[in-house]
Amino acid sequence: MKLIRFGNEKNEKPGILDEKGERLDLSGYFEDWDEKFFASGGLEKLKELMTKEGEFPKIAESVRWAPCVARPPKIICIGLNYSDHARESGAEIPKEPVVFMKASNTVSGPYDDVYIPKNSDKTDWEVELGVIIGKEAMYLESPDEADNYIAGYCISHDVSERAFQLEKGGQWTKGKSCKGFSPIGPFLLTSDEMDDVNSLKLELKVNGEPMQQGNTGLMIFDVHHIVWYLSQFMVLEPGDLISTGTPPGVGMGKKPPQYLKDGDVVELGIEGLGFQKQKFVNYP
Amino acid sequence: MKLIRFGNEKNEKPGILDEKGERLDLSGYFEDWDEKFFASGGLEKLKELMTKEGEFPKIAESVRWAPCVARPPKIICIGLNYSDHARESGAEIPKEPVVFMKASNTVSGPYDDVYIPKNSDKTDWEVELGVIIGKEAMYLESPDEADNYIAGYCISHDVSERAFQLEKGGQWTKGKSCKGFSPIGPFLLTSDEMDDVNSLKLELKVNGEPMQQGNTGLMIFDVHHIVWYLSQFMVLEPGDLISTGTPPGVGMGKKPPQYLKDGDVVELGIEGLGFQKQKFVNYP
Repeated sequence: MKLIRFGNEKNEKPGILDEKGERLDLSGYFEDWDEKFFASGGLEKLKELMTKEGEFPKIAESVRWAPCVARPPKIICIGLNYSDHARESGAEIPKEPVVFMKASNTVSGPYDDVYIPKNSDKTDWEVELGVIIGKEAMYLESPDEADNYIAGYCISHDVSERAFQLEKGGQWTKGKSCKGFSPIGPFLLTSDEMDDVNSLKLELKVNGEPMQQGNTGLMIFDVHHIVWYLSQFMVLEPGDLISTGTPPGVGMGKKPPQYLKDGDVVELGIEGLGFQKQKFVNYP
Repeated sequence: MKLIRFGNEKNEKPGILDEKGERLDLSGYFEDWDEKFFASGGLEKLKELMTKEGEFPKIAESVRWAPCVARPPKIICIGLNYSDHARESGAEIPKEPVVFMKASNTVSGPYDDVYIPKNSDKTDWEVELGVIIGKEAMYLESPDEADNYIAGYCISHDVSERAFQLEKGGQWTKGKSCKGFSPIGPFLLTSDEMDDVNSLKLELKVNGEPMQQGNTGLMIFDVHHIVWYLSQFMVLEPGDLISTGTPPGVGMGKKPPQYLKDGDVVELGIEGLGFQKQKFVNYP
């Protein structure tokens, strides 16, 4: 199934994207695709509903695409998880996953404009595979168990401000948590419909020019390893978003570096997970 | 006013601590001390209620003290914010606040047992002044504005696992986000009753032996600077917890280092904000 959400901010509703590419309104059946939904076996109920019923209200094309799941309890990111990207960043290949957190009030819709923050001149792009947790996970015994704890996958754009992240001392959070810095969607593909998460092409363009190209097969730590690993250090919760790292081609790695400016358009896609498109605009 | 919460996990209710030190049940009037409460002018309504009414149900002494506010939307921590502590950690004095995030499902009650995580042998203590945000804050113009955005203050125990934090590569989050690693309370003192937040003694003992002693007057960046600073990089939300850094005397800084083991008791206090006491126990 492909879960979507629709409607304006603060009034977002749950729906699905059907096989014909039509968005259907499920707000008469479910409150939201949120922690409570995932924790209470919502995905099974949804599946059952979809096999039984045939008719759901269609959503008009003009209606906004919202983030594909509700605000996650946590956003956990993996840094430098593609060996090529680690190299372009001038960093060593990590021996264990590099973990940081991003404020979870950064989630935004896949086609929303993204603000370039005030005082920013190094706003950068990062296409990433997003994992949504389906079930509380703590101390998993091995990566083999991880699949049971994953609700599904989506595109996650880990927008980053490099000066805030790297030139102001300390940890990365400052350059990751600005308003609107986590577009997710357009849809969450449930994990039962994912063929092979370890062999997905990723790509990102800026103003039509290809910038990032990669394949999840080149991750240093794969999705299942990451979920298992994180569960050794924190309690993963239903609805949590894990953003699994970005392939080479970010603006910071270019010679000379290239950053986003007012009016730039970023398009990004992952095989089987659709496409996002955002215009970056100066904060008013 | 002193806001408290009481009752067992997943069934916690709001109350206050009155001038006689009695805990009173306000769950008949308010749902919780959470984001919605702070965002909707709840503190003013509470103040009004307290001047009008005289009788509220008392809470039995045996009832658990819960975290003094509901799970925060975010927990943001400031690192190395006391010059003496920065020195004992072997770190440079930061030029700008060092910011990191802690999973917000780590909050626990002020007297709850705290688990020493599996595979941990460097669990450490950190007494800190906690700030709870009262109103959405973004791009504050100066630190002078910050006071209007602060709901109040509490003790925040920023429990830390040093091997997870520092010896596993990358960022600090892994050593900060373990289950139960953020005891807060016993109460939230509303900011109108705080005399001078920049001159509060802090202390922490392990098994009765004094370990940390400090004064918020020795912070490198004071509370108002921190709130203003953070608002330049993220949207602060009602109910957010900012943990403002720890004074010298953590276990990592001792020669030789000293860490918490099964059965150790940690007591910590801040002038005007009460005391916490936790037993540390091995994860079963």
